Amino acid sequence: MAISPRFTKSVPGGDNRARRVCDHCGFVAYENPRVVVGSVVRHGETVLLCRRAIDPRKGFWTIPAGYMELGETPDAGARREAREEACAVIETGELLAVYTIARLSQVQIFYRANLIDPAIAAGEESLEVGLFGWDEIPWDELAFPSVAWALAHEREVHLGNAQMPFANPPGETGSMSE
Amino acid sequence: MAISPRFTKSVPGGDNRARRVCDHCGFVAYENPRVVVGSVVRHGETVLLCRRAIDPRKGFWTIPAGYMELGETPDAGARREAREEACAVIETGELLAVYTIARLSQVQIFYRANLIDPAIAAGEESLEVGLFGWDEIPWDELAFPSVAWALAHEREVHLGNAQMPFANPPGETGSMSE
Repeated sequence: MAISPRFTKSVPGGDNRARRVCDHCGFVAYENPRVVVGSVVRHGETVLLCRRAIDPRKGFWTIPAGYMELGETPDAGARREAREEACAVIETGELLAVYTIARLSQVQIFYRANLIDPAIAAGEESLEVGLFGWDEIPWDELAFPSVAWALAHEREVHLGNAQMPFANPPGETGSMSE
Repeated sequence: MAISPRFTKSVPGGDNRARRVCDHCGFVAYENPRVVVGSVVRHGETVLLCRRAIDPRKGFWTIPAGYMELGETPDAGARREAREEACAVIETGELLAVYTIARLSQVQIFYRANLIDPAIAAGEESLEVGLFGWDEIPWDELAFPSVAWALAHEREVHLGNAQMPFANPPGETGSMSE
């Protein structure tokens, strides 16, 4: 018989916080912050954007980024995401930013990157991909606040007057009304 | 009747990797990299170290650090760990380092910090705490390789000739023989 997990909050032995414990099997579903890894991929004066084929924010534009997987480094994860979402072969460079979206318990680790081969194409999770000059970026159709932060921060570095890595812009928590 | 979770690896719908799925209840135990947050806490020419009261590496010395909790920022987590492990009130500063221990799927986010109040004491997870000058650091009794990295990297910054944040030292993966 197929059953579903049923979680009740309680404090496991040796812990000091309530965690989700499954009533059926005693599994403690420790919930940890998630790490998102990605990159602002530059090709000359343009940057790579992907239009999301999946929710959340389907149809909106993002930089290639996603959840870091087990056993990989953040920069390797950023390269994997560029490959998966834009069929893009990139070279990652400096650590651009470490943002926190506390509401979502996300840590976002973004790198600067360069496109090694200008051949790009929409991966499974993208509707389309493109290279955009600064004035061509669809600012009103970006998927998440931190996409705009990363693009602006990378731009500052590109123009030569900023020190990395960036954190959230002052006062910004990454919350958005959808 | 108390039962235990029983996991089998399979690829959930809409995913592209095998995950651990509980045979009893269908719970998908997504495993994500863990974020460790901490700080090198300076007080004048000394740094704060804690001797671990818990495994792994019980009895060995570490900087205050631990798993980031849900809903907090990395720097808030670093302050919480200093409070929990050393009853220390600290002020966090610049991002010192982002290390990766891929073998353990850990991302370690370490800050520079200063002790606001020199009153420190062993917290529940520490046997003792202390302030150590550079030449007093128990190098042979440090709990983890990245503790040594962080201390050495903070020292470079303190001496004025290094750019943050650091990554793993070249060739170092953080593996250790225990």
